[in-house]
Amino acid sequence: MKVMVDLCVIPIGVGVSLSEYIVACQKIIREAGLTHEMHAYGTNVEGEWDEVFATVKRCHEAVHAMGAPRITTTIKLGTRVDRPQTLADKVASVQSKL
Amino acid sequence: MKVMVDLCVIPIGVGVSLSEYIVACQKIIREAGLTHEMHAYGTNVEGEWDEVFATVKRCHEAVHAMGAPRITTTIKLGTRVDRPQTLADKVASVQSKL
Amino acid sequence: MKVMVDLCVIPIGVGVSLSEYIVACQKIIREAGLTHEMHAYGTNVEGEWDEVFATVKRCHEAVHAMGAPRITTTIKLGTRVDRPQTLADKVASVQSKL
Amino acid sequence: MKVMVDLCVIPIGVGVSLSEYIVACQKIIREAGLTHEMHAYGTNVEGEWDEVFATVKRCHEAVHAMGAPRITTTIKLGTRVDRPQTLADKVASVQSKL
Repeated sequence: MKVMVDLCVIPIGVGVSLSEYIVACQKIIREAGLTHEMHAYGTNVEGEWDEVFATVKRCHEAVHAMGAPRITTTIKLGTRVDRPQTLADKVASVQSKL
Repeated sequence: MKVMVDLCVIPIGVGVSLSEYIVACQKIIREAGLTHEMHAYGTNVEGEWDEVFATVKRCHEAVHAMGAPRITTTIKLGTRVDRPQTLADKVASVQSKL
Repeated sequence: MKVMVDLCVIPIGVGVSLSEYIVACQKIIREAGLTHEMHAYGTNVEGEWDEVFATVKRCHEAVHAMGAPRITTTIKLGTRVDRPQTLADKVASVQSKL
Repeated sequence: MKVMVDLCVIPIGVGVSLSEYIVACQKIIREAGLTHEMHAYGTNVEGEWDEVFATVKRCHEAVHAMGAPRITTTIKLGTRVDRPQTLADKVASVQSKL
């Protein structure tokens, strides 16, 4: 099952500057070979369910290993079985009507 | 790694009444033996990371099998490595100060 | 327009213990006279749109005034125009089928 | 108070194709003159709190007026009082370290 995820990982207890943790997650997502696109409040990732969630888990493990005692993450995730649809398809579908 | 999740599964393309799909997810969570608590806008679930996310996946599979062509889910998830904390601890900590 | 909200306010840059900030938000919601119910990963609130969002804003102002330099909040919100539905109705609808 | 929002509006009870509703929301955000950037799972919007949330409300009103009986929306929102930061700053901060 393919899944489309919007992932936003927030380390807690490490001060206000979070970009180094976000960078670590970006590298993990990239190394996983998953199609992804960062935006200002998260990162869209698409792929097979198990691969995507294994990657989310690795992000949590890495951010804890960097010293964050606590993490809160928000994920939006979409699956559909009626037809294939990519992240790019979704944006194009709206852009074409604007 | 323990994880605490707030899970909200929304089937799309099945009309406005969603409760039968929520019921199916509740049963799946219960059968998984995970500590959980339903509220009006989701269900809190706690357990080992892999078990919790395997359960989320089963919910998506079941809701599609019931006829939903598309699902959008929102998950908040928390992990912490500084100390153990349960769903009940979190609520008690706030209640004691109110 | 009535709205149903699931509100989760996370102060950033104040360490790992967040319960005093959650307590402050609970008091603000209570003082607003809004129907609400706390759970382990947020608080459900229902009421008129403008009142509910004015309350969310007051929570952010209060948490900043308590010293949090940065806040990230996740909100799920629902509106419906086909029929009235309360937080309690939603839970009862699922419970009756379990 | 400035706010940064990630907005994802999901109409329920209108079938599986949601792009026309997303287009309507994009137009409302654009007409509000707010800085925004659409991605595959939502739209980032930044501006003054009251303007941003008035715009979110107009989106709900418009989507209901188009025929959606029910809407569920997920919002992530961030405020900070330590220093100004734009949507573009956030992305640039991570990109510079990748």
